[in-house]
Amino acid sequence: MTEAPARSKRRSSNKRGQIIPQLPWGQPRYHFPLVEPLTHEDVLKTHDNALRVLEEIGIRFQDEDAVAIFAKAGCIIGEDGMTVRIGRDVVEQALKTVKSEVVLTPRNRERAVTIGGNHVAFASVLGPPYCSDIEKGRRQGTLEDYSNFVRLGQYFNVIHMISGAPVEAMDIPLETRHLYGTLRTLELSDKVPFVFCQGRQRIHDALDMIAMAKGMDRNGLMEEPSTFTIINSNSPLQYDKPMAGGLIEMAKHNQLSMITPFSLAGASHPISLGAANSLAVAEMLAALTLTQLVRPGAPVASAAYTMNVNMQTGSPGFGSPETNKSLQIGSQMARFYGLPIRSSTFTSSPAPDAQAIYESLGMLWASITSGSNLIMHAAGWLEGGLRSSFEKFVLDVEMLQMMVKYLEPVAVNDTTLAFEEIKAVGHGGHFFDTENTINNYNTAFYEPIVATAKNFGQWEEDGSLDATQRAHLVYKKALDAYQQPQLDASTSEALEAFVKRREDQGGAPIDL
Amino acid sequence: MTEAPARSKRRSSNKRGQIIPQLPWGQPRYHFPLVEPLTHEDVLKTHDNALRVLEEIGIRFQDEDAVAIFAKAGCIIGEDGMTVRIGRDVVEQALKTVKSEVVLTPRNRERAVTIGGNHVAFASVLGPPYCSDIEKGRRQGTLEDYSNFVRLGQYFNVIHMISGAPVEAMDIPLETRHLYGTLRTLELSDKVPFVFCQGRQRIHDALDMIAMAKGMDRNGLMEEPSTFTIINSNSPLQYDKPMAGGLIEMAKHNQLSMITPFSLAGASHPISLGAANSLAVAEMLAALTLTQLVRPGAPVASAAYTMNVNMQTGSPGFGSPETNKSLQIGSQMARFYGLPIRSSTFTSSPAPDAQAIYESLGMLWASITSGSNLIMHAAGWLEGGLRSSFEKFVLDVEMLQMMVKYLEPVAVNDTTLAFEEIKAVGHGGHFFDTENTINNYNTAFYEPIVATAKNFGQWEEDGSLDATQRAHLVYKKALDAYQQPQLDASTSEALEAFVKRREDQGGAPIDL
Repeated sequence: MTEAPARSKRRSSNKRGQIIPQLPWGQPRYHFPLVEPLTHEDVLKTHDNALRVLEEIGIRFQDEDAVAIFAKAGCIIGEDGMTVRIGRDVVEQALKTVKSEVVLTPRNRERAVTIGGNHVAFASVLGPPYCSDIEKGRRQGTLEDYSNFVRLGQYFNVIHMISGAPVEAMDIPLETRHLYGTLRTLELSDKVPFVFCQGRQRIHDALDMIAMAKGMDRNGLMEEPSTFTIINSNSPLQYDKPMAGGLIEMAKHNQLSMITPFSLAGASHPISLGAANSLAVAEMLAALTLTQLVRPGAPVASAAYTMNVNMQTGSPGFGSPETNKSLQIGSQMARFYGLPIRSSTFTSSPAPDAQAIYESLGMLWASITSGSNLIMHAAGWLEGGLRSSFEKFVLDVEMLQMMVKYLEPVAVNDTTLAFEEIKAVGHGGHFFDTENTINNYNTAFYEPIVATAKNFGQWEEDGSLDATQRAHLVYKKALDAYQQPQLDASTSEALEAFVKRREDQGGAPIDL
Repeated sequence: MTEAPARSKRRSSNKRGQIIPQLPWGQPRYHFPLVEPLTHEDVLKTHDNALRVLEEIGIRFQDEDAVAIFAKAGCIIGEDGMTVRIGRDVVEQALKTVKSEVVLTPRNRERAVTIGGNHVAFASVLGPPYCSDIEKGRRQGTLEDYSNFVRLGQYFNVIHMISGAPVEAMDIPLETRHLYGTLRTLELSDKVPFVFCQGRQRIHDALDMIAMAKGMDRNGLMEEPSTFTIINSNSPLQYDKPMAGGLIEMAKHNQLSMITPFSLAGASHPISLGAANSLAVAEMLAALTLTQLVRPGAPVASAAYTMNVNMQTGSPGFGSPETNKSLQIGSQMARFYGLPIRSSTFTSSPAPDAQAIYESLGMLWASITSGSNLIMHAAGWLEGGLRSSFEKFVLDVEMLQMMVKYLEPVAVNDTTLAFEEIKAVGHGGHFFDTENTINNYNTAFYEPIVATAKNFGQWEEDGSLDATQRAHLVYKKALDAYQQPQLDASTSEALEAFVKRREDQGGAPIDL
């Protein structure tokens, strides 16, 4: 093969003149057939069993307001004052008002994302107390680490939503941590922010601040979904006070709750995947019903699937085959109900290594092929959620970009079939310098940010850096290239004044 | 959560009393819906364009016998005596005699594998001149390395077929290397062996030896497909002499040819994926037609898809998004023709690291979800096929085992929905010690061979080994645990005598 002119040109700079090659901002859509592990009959059986659980066994809400709302809807309250038996008519009515798609609009309206349909959105890692990078090792997170993860999430176009906290700012007291975290998120990023469901006061604070950043008040938010939270059950068949309260607050304010039963087959749920998934569906439906009783049409997404418990450690089977298959069953059930689908990419790995990749990437493929809409923890998650990794963040970004490129449909028509080009090149020739190649080489194929195809000698000469070490360099480069998005001075001052005032008031209670 | 009795029991030994936890021998099947990127109309257009290429442009076979066979079938031979224009009637006739499934039976009949339908089979890496492990680093392969890879392929149940050479035995002269390699494969393994398509003499030698190991002669093999080879085109639109000759020999002997156009969009093929895939289909159909003209019903599998060329290095886009999508289009086209589907898991990575995993695993998911039947290079491939890695072999085995476990359907019925168990546990309880958990914890979930869910402190105490380092320990353990399969003394002696005799005759010519 002779070297084509196109190739030497290509070497000098990457194709879009960017420091790190990126795909443009935008949401991918899933156009290919869906992988659905259950038959339609199995779906109906799973559904029916879930309804029977809610009707005959009931579910416990450790929150008086929630119980009162169910009572008012005609549900039967148990002697403990907490266990609610929900009739299938009530669930079915709730399913009538729920929406299959929601648009979340952040302070920069161009960063709005659609959750539902065949739209896909990726959100960064959420919640770990520790973080790490190769340079400084594993450590407790600080507000500066938090900020750097927000900057990475803002920088990379493939990240659509910023999960707060990407790492816990352990250097800030718990009473005011949510205030400083939300402030940093809103200042450093103009993408959709997250609200942590840790008691009603914190939710109110975050909603107030998100509203301010958009130039409105908390009531204004009710007209425009702008943020999202995760609601976990305290399984089996139980929601605790912060989660039940969070559900009510988010629904009241017309903001998105991603209902995520914390289902572990063999621990909180039956060991049989069929039963565990069905029980998770029951838990999801109960929470969904509550939101629709609070505000018909309030946005919810479903993540009703089980993970297996690891029988040796008791920890969840992050990225296990059983989790991947259940996740797809959960997507299938959510689609049956006409709900947006939330999923995740998890790993148990204690290092940003081969295991971290095969566990995360398995979940990514399982999620995408089963039609997941919002993929949480999609960049940076490590060590079973105890740690955010800067290198893993970049490795995940590469995998997400590859997935987006994969999802582009292939056009098949007279032009793209290129019969005349094939004829002109003939037998044993090459296509390096055909008109089509020269016109398209710049954008035809994915350009990696970490992966290398260098030969071994060249790679050795360049320092024998493995992919994780190269990801380290990319994350540093991304932080250098990051630019803080515009926020007008008066808004910024108002947000800071709000934080100061709330701090002076003592922040939010630690005891939820 | 209290510790369940099941968990402490579990810790003492793994569930099947094996040294390394393995799934039992057996082929997985794909029961879920298929991911097909093209519409049916696109399939027809791709097909029609391929037929037009063969009819109007033709394809070059650099082998007199092949050209004569096409001429006899009424094809138009060009002035160069090599370019064959194949009418669609001839292709369509060939597609009528080709089989959608073939069973390959090795010397141990219990290790027979079915290629086609919804059956899946995994074959180990094939062809690299280099190999590596952490202990000895990267080096030229030797017959001892070759043997160790065969031992690993034999040891792990999830590997169904042994690709020879898993690494080139560079310490054996080229004239006799195929003899010693085939001998080692047949002695150290009783799984389906591979024949390298490097000239007719080598194919005859390998077929003779495979027949001897089965207690028959080469004519006997004709009654029973027993081995497989890869046929690459020398694209565009060209087959060289060794490949054309190999096609004829394998078809004549009723052995499986996996027809794999070496298609690189932007190099050997047009940059448009639509055109590149269609041209690859044309090349596949030409080779398939030749096999059916030689012997109607001769087994063939199709791998008619394109990879993109890496515009910076000129190398194939192993594991790229474009490759993954094209691979699925190739599967869709093969299914349209009723052919068994061959695929691969590739990576360009120069190390058994995160990149190696995300490139390989992306191809594995793309292959499985699009219905691939035979996945080549499924364990051990590294560095664009220049190197076999012992650690990567084990990491791949883990990913294959996880895929097999994922493919098990979930049963949904009154028993597995476990309503009464859910009722008995109630709200806020746990399922650690229910009857179902105790009866099933041993086999319910995948048990990893490399992945760990240990907490960070424990992992550090155990030496902070990353997944690749742990895979190193597993490969050593597997070699220790390996047991050579029975082969009766007379067969063994006959094979050795054959090799000696052929060596005395000078082996096979180097110039193909």
